[in-house]
Amino acid sequence: MIDFQETIEAIYYELKQSQNKGVVASYIPELSKQNKNSFGIHIQHIDGRTFQIGDWNVPFSIQSISKVLALSKAIAFEDNRIWDRMDVEPSGNPFNHLSLLELEAGIPRNPLINAGAIVVADILVTHLKHPKTDFLNYVRIITNDNSINYNVDVAASEKRTGFKNYAAANLLKSFGNLNNDIEVVLDFYFHQCALEMTCSQLSKAFFLFANKGKCINNVQHISSSHTKRINAIMLTCGFYDEAGEFAFEVGLPGKSGVGGGIVALLPNDFVISTWAPGLNPKGNSLLGMQALEYFTTKTGRSIF
Amino acid sequence: MIDFQETIEAIYYELKQSQNKGVVASYIPELSKQNKNSFGIHIQHIDGRTFQIGDWNVPFSIQSISKVLALSKAIAFEDNRIWDRMDVEPSGNPFNHLSLLELEAGIPRNPLINAGAIVVADILVTHLKHPKTDFLNYVRIITNDNSINYNVDVAASEKRTGFKNYAAANLLKSFGNLNNDIEVVLDFYFHQCALEMTCSQLSKAFFLFANKGKCINNVQHISSSHTKRINAIMLTCGFYDEAGEFAFEVGLPGKSGVGGGIVALLPNDFVISTWAPGLNPKGNSLLGMQALEYFTTKTGRSIF
Amino acid sequence: MIDFQETIEAIYYELKQSQNKGVVASYIPELSKQNKNSFGIHIQHIDGRTFQIGDWNVPFSIQSISKVLALSKAIAFEDNRIWDRMDVEPSGNPFNHLSLLELEAGIPRNPLINAGAIVVADILVTHLKHPKTDFLNYVRIITNDNSINYNVDVAASEKRTGFKNYAAANLLKSFGNLNNDIEVVLDFYFHQCALEMTCSQLSKAFFLFANKGKCINNVQHISSSHTKRINAIMLTCGFYDEAGEFAFEVGLPGKSGVGGGIVALLPNDFVISTWAPGLNPKGNSLLGMQALEYFTTKTGRSIF
Amino acid sequence: MIDFQETIEAIYYELKQSQNKGVVASYIPELSKQNKNSFGIHIQHIDGRTFQIGDWNVPFSIQSISKVLALSKAIAFEDNRIWDRMDVEPSGNPFNHLSLLELEAGIPRNPLINAGAIVVADILVTHLKHPKTDFLNYVRIITNDNSINYNVDVAASEKRTGFKNYAAANLLKSFGNLNNDIEVVLDFYFHQCALEMTCSQLSKAFFLFANKGKCINNVQHISSSHTKRINAIMLTCGFYDEAGEFAFEVGLPGKSGVGGGIVALLPNDFVISTWAPGLNPKGNSLLGMQALEYFTTKTGRSIF
Repeated sequence: MIDFQETIEAIYYELKQSQNKGVVASYIPELSKQNKNSFGIHIQHIDGRTFQIGDWNVPFSIQSISKVLALSKAIAFEDNRIWDRMDVEPSGNPFNHLSLLELEAGIPRNPLINAGAIVVADILVTHLKHPKTDFLNYVRIITNDNSINYNVDVAASEKRTGFKNYAAANLLKSFGNLNNDIEVVLDFYFHQCALEMTCSQLSKAFFLFANKGKCINNVQHISSSHTKRINAIMLTCGFYDEAGEFAFEVGLPGKSGVGGGIVALLPNDFVISTWAPGLNPKGNSLLGMQALEYFTTKTGRSIF
Repeated sequence: MIDFQETIEAIYYELKQSQNKGVVASYIPELSKQNKNSFGIHIQHIDGRTFQIGDWNVPFSIQSISKVLALSKAIAFEDNRIWDRMDVEPSGNPFNHLSLLELEAGIPRNPLINAGAIVVADILVTHLKHPKTDFLNYVRIITNDNSINYNVDVAASEKRTGFKNYAAANLLKSFGNLNNDIEVVLDFYFHQCALEMTCSQLSKAFFLFANKGKCINNVQHISSSHTKRINAIMLTCGFYDEAGEFAFEVGLPGKSGVGGGIVALLPNDFVISTWAPGLNPKGNSLLGMQALEYFTTKTGRSIF
Repeated sequence: MIDFQETIEAIYYELKQSQNKGVVASYIPELSKQNKNSFGIHIQHIDGRTFQIGDWNVPFSIQSISKVLALSKAIAFEDNRIWDRMDVEPSGNPFNHLSLLELEAGIPRNPLINAGAIVVADILVTHLKHPKTDFLNYVRIITNDNSINYNVDVAASEKRTGFKNYAAANLLKSFGNLNNDIEVVLDFYFHQCALEMTCSQLSKAFFLFANKGKCINNVQHISSSHTKRINAIMLTCGFYDEAGEFAFEVGLPGKSGVGGGIVALLPNDFVISTWAPGLNPKGNSLLGMQALEYFTTKTGRSIF
Repeated sequence: MIDFQETIEAIYYELKQSQNKGVVASYIPELSKQNKNSFGIHIQHIDGRTFQIGDWNVPFSIQSISKVLALSKAIAFEDNRIWDRMDVEPSGNPFNHLSLLELEAGIPRNPLINAGAIVVADILVTHLKHPKTDFLNYVRIITNDNSINYNVDVAASEKRTGFKNYAAANLLKSFGNLNNDIEVVLDFYFHQCALEMTCSQLSKAFFLFANKGKCINNVQHISSSHTKRINAIMLTCGFYDEAGEFAFEVGLPGKSGVGGGIVALLPNDFVISTWAPGLNPKGNSLLGMQALEYFTTKTGRSIF
């Protein structure tokens, strides 16, 4: 059996020297301040062991990765009724593309494109008494870590420049697929995306998806059946128009964010998180994608 | 542990009584002659055991399922060079849709939409001395069954009415992504799709994808790495615009054909094949989709 | 020579009896209160004569017809520089479709689709000191009629439900093609669309487009060359995805609005306005389209 | 009144010196042999006078210009029934784009995109006893010139490389919108496009569209009403995705071909033809477009 610690160290030291580290996201001004040389890897095994290297304990903006956590909470509230308001098909398009939304009468292709994630946010705003506080508590509980917080500067920065998200929310509203006030939903959504977590916290937060719905504290938050389905959605829709490529090269369900984070998991085995702020042209962390590809190649771990 | 034989029998007798059995494909005239009440299920475990019920031993036209077998042979010839000529992303569109092909400068979205499968056929025509004979031999070898054959009436029927495939081939040619003569490539392609196999033969043919590239005779035909990638493509692209739904509901890599067949597999575990000619509106076997959904739900087997 | 008064009377009395009078627009709640039996026709000849029948003197909401008046003012300010921010090509799509806007990097197809008209509104907000007052004055001056006004209830109604326009404005902003504050631009735009005019006032307002840029008071507001170009844009883009049909059946430059108004003109000859609130499935006045088709057929008047 | 001869001479000598003369079409190999310095202008007034300069008497391949002549013959056979098989709306897309065809269930957007012109060719093949001979005779009769002929080398060249047209014809066939054999229809279509005419012959051939349907020999070939409609289609659809631009800059109904020819007309006034083989990026003759723009600006002639 291949040693996980040895493997991630080898990957870390090789990729650390890469000339091409991608481009740090600039469309959210606060994110552009990140250091391109940051790089961390963390593994949480479901047997409790952890493996880590580099900047695994530095908090970063998880951005779109938060969509999976929000989805798990929305499913806990509404079960399969949420699929009346969005589909589960890959979009075949970049993450901020509105056209498909419009062509399909206000039903977003899946919950991980922005339009779908805004519908999920709308569901949470409906069910949560204090949406921002309550959602933060949910994340702290499944991660077993009360130090997690929103970065309000990032949330404010995204609000000031989030015209495409306002466009998507207005379009959803025009089709009757947004029940709450646009400002309230987007305020929640911008905070949700502005969650700051370390690689280690991220691995713990996603523990439940590798463990049939039970979090790291052994509490069942969603059913085993819903867990499988969320994993399926991550695999087919988690990497924008690079989802097929990630399934093909890495072979694990996962989710990336423009803050440079990626989390992926092998059911009943482990969760792996990476962080490197430089992105490839498709908007996924360049070193993170490479690290995960090397990891699954070297360890032979894959759902396929 | 749940008993496979008992499970497929329960599913078989329940679905046999369904009022709605879908619509038999009519666009290939020969296929429209199929009996909607046909229904068979077959499982080939990688430990050698088999389980079966109903019309599991009746040959039917495997149609698009053949695309995966052709792909495995093309990869054996050209390795990852084949990805210069097609992509691995889900199409988000029905199986016979040409527009994306055109928008992306002649590069099909993946090898399982018709345009991509025609490029794969072109690769085989380039490499095989006697394409139709040699490909049939390959299928017979991996299945360990010399009785498998083309149905030449189905091939001729498809040739007479295959205008969309002629359109796709001409479009590929206009973009320089078809090296051989259109008539030769499509004659091969129509024969490939007109392969007739039973559920049992299908399970055996796909044995190698559940067994790290080694066929039922224990011969390595493609590498373990290529096997994983083909499984990933089946999962993300195997069911036209219902690929996300299949991953979500069933959670296994698989491929369907308009003849009513579906094959799916759990790596290192088993291959399952179903046949029921009635299709749902998306072009996948109605009873077959339901049978596989019930099977994975009841057995808890899934890659997720 | 055919008598204009006799012709419009014959058309009026024939169409008045139509069983099918279309559907009154309901997406702006205020407009849905209109009476489907209203019907008026008015002709303003450039020699000064007028011809009229029915409800030609009843004010109605001119809606998208206002886009042409706004365009003429924007061209007066910026000359051909406005074409850096929008194109002059037919959209081939319904009037509220955003996808093309996005595909072409924030440049609307033409100034008469909503996205283009919002860019025009942005230009006017930049140049006019008191946009709403100053634009109203411009319309009053070219029409020589100080009684023209905005219907503030209609403007407020559209503001409350104008989610698609908010989506378009946000998308334009995201592409850097909107210089002023979204709320300010849309407040102006909703007022502009909420102008109320009679058929008679509409004919007078469009007099300048039939008269080489000189209004009914003989003042030159735009050059003869710009007049021709605006007429060309009306012909190719004035009727959403029915523009080709209108050119084909009627053969005059014109513009329709969802309030049920249509105005069309033959350069150096006459302006004709119709009002009938019931719309056809493409969003153009049903009786108005028929009236204009009959009129040009009976009189033989057409630019072709 | 401005002198036509003087005007075209001034334009000719100015444009002759242009550094940028565009790019000669290469996708039909025979056409790539054309000399980029060729340039001719010819005007046929309906009062019988003619004006000409440069290479006005050199035959060239009229290509897509022939679609208008074919359309006039098809309308003569089938009247308005032809509109059951195609629409009259601008496509908003390049001339060889198939996607819209597919989205609209096999109904081409208009008769001047390739897919629509192939349907027109199908109609002529149905009605003409000897399609190629009979259509050639029609062109000779309306032009009053028996020397006009097909260039069979160009037709053969286009047949060898016309994969996009084969794709379009197969797609139409798959939708049931092509009644005759694909090879027969395309053989006719490639010949039709391979007609060779001089500027002078082209002006005479289009005389009937400026003269209410009566050709230069004063014979009525189509009704005045059909003439208007064909002019409307030329205006809205005659220049691919530059139709709006041409209407805007030139303001005359017209049609271009990739051989470098353009013909345009002012009803009841004149027909003007230009030929210059270098094309702009949209596929229309670069010098021809400029010449027509200068001509209508200098003479003030326009339908608007």
